[in-house]
Amino acid sequence: MNEKSKIAVIGGGSWATAIAKIALTNAQEINWYMRRQEQIDEFIRLSKNPSYLTGVKFDTDRINFTSDINKLVRTSDILIFATPSPFLKQHLKKLKRPLHNKFIVTAIKGIVPDENLVVTEYFEQFYNVPKDNIAVLAGPCHAEEVALERLSYLTIGCTDRERARMLSQRFNTSFIRTSISDDIMGIEYSSVMKNIYSIAAGICHGLKYGDNFQAVLVSNAIQEMNRFCNATNPLHRDINESAYLGDLLVTAYSKFSRNRLFGTMIGKGYSVKTAQIEMEMIAEGYYATKCIHEINEKYQISMPIVDSVFEILYNRVSPTMEIRKLSEKLK
Amino acid sequence: MNEKSKIAVIGGGSWATAIAKIALTNAQEINWYMRRQEQIDEFIRLSKNPSYLTGVKFDTDRINFTSDINKLVRTSDILIFATPSPFLKQHLKKLKRPLHNKFIVTAIKGIVPDENLVVTEYFEQFYNVPKDNIAVLAGPCHAEEVALERLSYLTIGCTDRERARMLSQRFNTSFIRTSISDDIMGIEYSSVMKNIYSIAAGICHGLKYGDNFQAVLVSNAIQEMNRFCNATNPLHRDINESAYLGDLLVTAYSKFSRNRLFGTMIGKGYSVKTAQIEMEMIAEGYYATKCIHEINEKYQISMPIVDSVFEILYNRVSPTMEIRKLSEKLK
Repeated sequence: MNEKSKIAVIGGGSWATAIAKIALTNAQEINWYMRRQEQIDEFIRLSKNPSYLTGVKFDTDRINFTSDINKLVRTSDILIFATPSPFLKQHLKKLKRPLHNKFIVTAIKGIVPDENLVVTEYFEQFYNVPKDNIAVLAGPCHAEEVALERLSYLTIGCTDRERARMLSQRFNTSFIRTSISDDIMGIEYSSVMKNIYSIAAGICHGLKYGDNFQAVLVSNAIQEMNRFCNATNPLHRDINESAYLGDLLVTAYSKFSRNRLFGTMIGKGYSVKTAQIEMEMIAEGYYATKCIHEINEKYQISMPIVDSVFEILYNRVSPTMEIRKLSEKLK
Repeated sequence: MNEKSKIAVIGGGSWATAIAKIALTNAQEINWYMRRQEQIDEFIRLSKNPSYLTGVKFDTDRINFTSDINKLVRTSDILIFATPSPFLKQHLKKLKRPLHNKFIVTAIKGIVPDENLVVTEYFEQFYNVPKDNIAVLAGPCHAEEVALERLSYLTIGCTDRERARMLSQRFNTSFIRTSISDDIMGIEYSSVMKNIYSIAAGICHGLKYGDNFQAVLVSNAIQEMNRFCNATNPLHRDINESAYLGDLLVTAYSKFSRNRLFGTMIGKGYSVKTAQIEMEMIAEGYYATKCIHEINEKYQISMPIVDSVFEILYNRVSPTMEIRKLSEKLK
């Protein structure tokens, strides 16, 4: 990877669109994959994403769109994945080219369903991408605020610090500050877990618990996250840095978070199935809950919040009862 | 102190009213001091505080009101101070009785102006109250939610754990969970500092920084708070517990916080003087900023957020310039 490496964005949602906007600030042009050719055609016609961050105009002469994943991979060096995690496999299904010689950046904050793997693990195990060729892009970042060029902070995690630094330079703009980290697993797990805590915050909100309780819930959540990261990936980390606590805060306190909304519906009495149909897709934290819960069967870390969300989502325990029980374990 | 010790509440605001409500759940009767006799007369006439938490009805037969601080102290064992910190001295001015044989609980989250002391220090130094006779009552707690009996958590800090436990039992109700701690100074400083960070959050909000930035600000704030507490009161503490992080969250993310509102006005371009007049009183964080800044002259802890708020409030540095400078120090 060098400063001339060709960047590709994979995904057509709001986060992918925000990342394309950031990448285009420093790159002359980028490649951009969307699964549906109609979305690309509409994008070119309107000079903007027809469905997401519609306030952001793009100079489409600087974007090489494609709906052909093989063409994208062939013409790109750095592949930034920014699809919802449940769709990742679908995007990769048609891929016939190897990925081990590419630099993979995951901006996906979720679990690969069925495999129960975080995305970096998935690329390592299923595509033989070496660790040093994988980075994670995280931080407290609503795509909508990136669209408005409101100052935001991103953390780039990579075991190869030099590559992390090089990538961070490509993302540094007037409205994005970047820092680097080598805690790739800690950052990825945290960004996955925050979705579970966001569901928990939603459930409690749906049950009419107030702000006092939410503050206690989030305080306990970050302690729980810290215990999990320390047990699974022992490393000197400060869990209060933006990539961990900040990311949790922006999600748990956001009224726009899909995970929080999903939780709110569960708290108000919707079944998982109904909430899923209403939202037209399952929130990523749903898969994360099962995955983290299963990983923890080995570690047996005290994780009362994850346990409660698991009981509610997977064992149909009443939210009222379960959160009351949980409230006795918090302090 | 025992389970029969007579509790007195000092103050007529919303937090004092919430504490009286909590105390009356377990106590048959309480003493309650308000400075103005008219407020007491109105309270008795209406069976509720005429100005604060007006939705909470009280059985006034169980309350011994007085506007005579000497009578209050004479007839009470446990004195819970819940006035805004700028008014504390005013309440105590007429006091002729000693306090060293009373149990003092401070629910004040602020600095005693002029003295630059936190409240527990003030009682120790000016009223010779021994350390073991002082407790601090803290935690993420909007009075308004206590009024609605929404589940809330309080922490009681006291160097004497047995007394902390006894007091915590008096506050345990169906809607209040209590825990105890011996980190009295850490809890008190944190509850003072969170007001500064709340002003900072307000300033940034007033300057139109978004949620992404706020999450980074709060992540940096809790790290700063941790550094300060560790340097001034080294002790094994987890800064992510509710009494520290939770209290910061409930204030920094609250639209009702006086400190945040004060900061928002400053961010929008009001002078300190004008904001003060508009709000009819100075937010407690204003005094806290100067105090913490002065204490830090000795310790020289890296506290970029407190420094910035100090520059803006006391040296009239432009909020736009100062926060831009601050944003380069955050990550």
